[in-house]
Amino acid sequence: MNCPYPYGAPAASDLDSLFNPRSIAIVGASANPTKMGHQYLRQLLHFGFEGKLYPVNRSGGAILGVPVCRSFQDIPGPVDYVISAIPADQLPQLIRDSETKGVKLLQLYTAHLGETEQGKGLEAEIIGMARRAGIRILGPNCMGIYYPERKITFRMGWPREAGDVGLISQSAGHTAEAVYRAARRGLRFSKVISFGNAADINEVELLRYLADDADTRIIAAYVEGLKAPRLFHRALETAAKKKPVVIMKGGRTDAGKRATLSHTGSLTGGDVLWHSMVRQCGAVAVSSIEDLVDITLAIHSFPQPGGVNVGCIGAGGGVSVSIADECESRGLAVPPLPGSIVNEIRKLLGKDSSLVKNPVDTSVIYPAGWTETEVKRIFQFMGEHPDFHLFLVDGGEWPLDSPETLHRFHESMAVFREVARGMAKPVAIVVRPGDATEEWRWKATLEAEQRCIEDGLTVYPSIQRAANALTRLVGYYQDKVAEG
Amino acid sequence: MNCPYPYGAPAASDLDSLFNPRSIAIVGASANPTKMGHQYLRQLLHFGFEGKLYPVNRSGGAILGVPVCRSFQDIPGPVDYVISAIPADQLPQLIRDSETKGVKLLQLYTAHLGETEQGKGLEAEIIGMARRAGIRILGPNCMGIYYPERKITFRMGWPREAGDVGLISQSAGHTAEAVYRAARRGLRFSKVISFGNAADINEVELLRYLADDADTRIIAAYVEGLKAPRLFHRALETAAKKKPVVIMKGGRTDAGKRATLSHTGSLTGGDVLWHSMVRQCGAVAVSSIEDLVDITLAIHSFPQPGGVNVGCIGAGGGVSVSIADECESRGLAVPPLPGSIVNEIRKLLGKDSSLVKNPVDTSVIYPAGWTETEVKRIFQFMGEHPDFHLFLVDGGEWPLDSPETLHRFHESMAVFREVARGMAKPVAIVVRPGDATEEWRWKATLEAEQRCIEDGLTVYPSIQRAANALTRLVGYYQDKVAEG
Repeated sequence: MNCPYPYGAPAASDLDSLFNPRSIAIVGASANPTKMGHQYLRQLLHFGFEGKLYPVNRSGGAILGVPVCRSFQDIPGPVDYVISAIPADQLPQLIRDSETKGVKLLQLYTAHLGETEQGKGLEAEIIGMARRAGIRILGPNCMGIYYPERKITFRMGWPREAGDVGLISQSAGHTAEAVYRAARRGLRFSKVISFGNAADINEVELLRYLADDADTRIIAAYVEGLKAPRLFHRALETAAKKKPVVIMKGGRTDAGKRATLSHTGSLTGGDVLWHSMVRQCGAVAVSSIEDLVDITLAIHSFPQPGGVNVGCIGAGGGVSVSIADECESRGLAVPPLPGSIVNEIRKLLGKDSSLVKNPVDTSVIYPAGWTETEVKRIFQFMGEHPDFHLFLVDGGEWPLDSPETLHRFHESMAVFREVARGMAKPVAIVVRPGDATEEWRWKATLEAEQRCIEDGLTVYPSIQRAANALTRLVGYYQDKVAEG
Repeated sequence: MNCPYPYGAPAASDLDSLFNPRSIAIVGASANPTKMGHQYLRQLLHFGFEGKLYPVNRSGGAILGVPVCRSFQDIPGPVDYVISAIPADQLPQLIRDSETKGVKLLQLYTAHLGETEQGKGLEAEIIGMARRAGIRILGPNCMGIYYPERKITFRMGWPREAGDVGLISQSAGHTAEAVYRAARRGLRFSKVISFGNAADINEVELLRYLADDADTRIIAAYVEGLKAPRLFHRALETAAKKKPVVIMKGGRTDAGKRATLSHTGSLTGGDVLWHSMVRQCGAVAVSSIEDLVDITLAIHSFPQPGGVNVGCIGAGGGVSVSIADECESRGLAVPPLPGSIVNEIRKLLGKDSSLVKNPVDTSVIYPAGWTETEVKRIFQFMGEHPDFHLFLVDGGEWPLDSPETLHRFHESMAVFREVARGMAKPVAIVVRPGDATEEWRWKATLEAEQRCIEDGLTVYPSIQRAANALTRLVGYYQDKVAEG
């Protein structure tokens, strides 16, 4: 049998309606700010969830100004969605209570179920009960849903604006890391679903859901185990035909596999097989959250590149060498500047073009008397030239040495931004965080980065990561073309 | 011939005395703060260089309160060290002037020499002149010396305190990047020498110098080309016998080689040969500045590990999986917790130890009622157990979501710090910078990192980089043992 549900198939249900609750009950709500039973309520209030909110706790009273129901039965209205932050042994009663209230979706922050030896029996029991009651389960051992359009979140610090990246993840920590990092780089999310042990709603169902979700243009995923490899394969293939899918699997190694077993009770397969399976499906396999963000960002932001040739700009000789090395060692090409560009430079700018190479080193050409306008023209010549398909621009950090020289950094970045804005090819801009311990330095790089993002540009924090993202971007489209 | 000097061997001279000038002249000093001829003076004043400072410029007057000499001949006293920020064609005259003043070392910020077709002849000419005049040349096309003990620097933002890391680099940009990043992580420098085109003082001489330098305990290096491969090989081998040497070479790829040619005029060799040569010498080859810093830090800070087994601690299931995957995929081992530790935990703490595994996931054991004291004991048991040789501790970022939950992050870090301080084995602590756009978040991670460093601990910014550094640390000592 190839059923993706470990406890038998659920009745067909529409995840979209489950993720659009009119009311949410938080069972195990707490006045203690360090408890998730407090944080869920706080986060929903903070985002301004527009439906009804019902904290439930025997103590009664109010938490964060919201009246607390002493029991589930005391909830005055209907409840669509329940967040459970109570101990596992209280779940059977919660499911019975939920059934009488017509609950559609029960999200279990509650853990110590299928991921532990002792909890496996109880997990099977509660899933069976939920099936019979017509209730779908998210989790157990998961954080739930971040759905900015519906003002649902499980982190305070995430963006309120919605976007078009869909993310599903078996790990809440990885979800948090990915959303923070992606958000800083300008990505916004349609739906983010942390689904933990996947005892009911799982990777196959969620992949199908996001594949058909009109708000989702690209899918990022972190999975640990596959409930039904063949169905997953088919779901991934179908999804990847509709939109890009970037996917990371935990448990690549023996120790990693042992760790997935105690994290979400997942059994994972071999790493090499996994990578070829993902690629065969037309999706992109990655090995870290850093890569998940970097490569999702590249595929989300960039047009299809016409080839592997990278035009590079940086400030500094060593940096130019590193840019060239990082690109070519990964399979991209950093060709010499074509003669036609050299001629154009000579003709139009009337200057000796021998200092201008690929990578363009602005630390050589500015001191030789070239102006910003001329540097812009060189960059534009390269952008228009058919021999260049991708661009890697390094913002450098030399002028970040003192507040007095800082303006040179911003001026140089402004030149890069202006040209990159008008470019129809992928341009990866490197803004190195500079490892600042001084506040002005931290602020300067953050500001430079955020200006790029406001201009719709795409930033990477290091030359290596930019080169890696461009390489994977090219690979993604090469595979697509090869596949036909 | 195997002479490392492209223009013939210089008279033997003692670099140490060259790098200890009693007076420095800055020729081409400028009132314009964006010019290096201004910045050199400013930086030396800022650091409080204790010798005489003579800015030289035809305009006269004063720069930053220091009287300017209108010509080199006008300098009232003897000059040991000259920094040149004047155009290349004025160098022959400067060398003639320097000879009459008894200058020992001329550092050429001046570029457009051997790294360009047109400048090669002039470079040969000035080196020949300098040889005859008994003057040593650093550069051309280089930034010079950062020697905190002598209060000499070419960057404002670098630490004033001296340390025991020696760094030589053909790239000023890479030097700046390396020093900033290493300084943030607690490393301090004995001598840093940016030597550009290496037309006179070069990698062989500098390597020999740092190998014998009593203030230098570990050598980090960035080179682009080798003047005399056999002599370099011998110098590297000799140096690596005396102290650890971590070395990066630019120009690993065709495009990288072209870029080294226009950066420092260096011809570089094949990447694979290079790596095996470096390893054969007992040194460590790296491919990026990030790695140069990470691995220098590991070898500098950690004792020799007794094996490849890593004890891991993190907060979160996905994170535990990633730690295990990142370690084992690189060749380290993350073994299950030995039975003896499990027993000890049960015996001493009187608790069910089934939740405690390797990696230890504090997000599972704290909510199950384990106390901080108990987590400390688990970590200590592991530290004392002969089956564990290295440790990777992830500080996590889950509580960094809001200022209200932040204290949990610091509390958790305090536990890790306390145990790590008492550990006689390598402990890599990961403090993830959190990609913060909010100031409080940036400050929180910086503070956590700096507290570790004040405690003498070693931090890495990501799990991948920590796992990589531990792997290279093990490899370094394995090679040493194999070599006998």
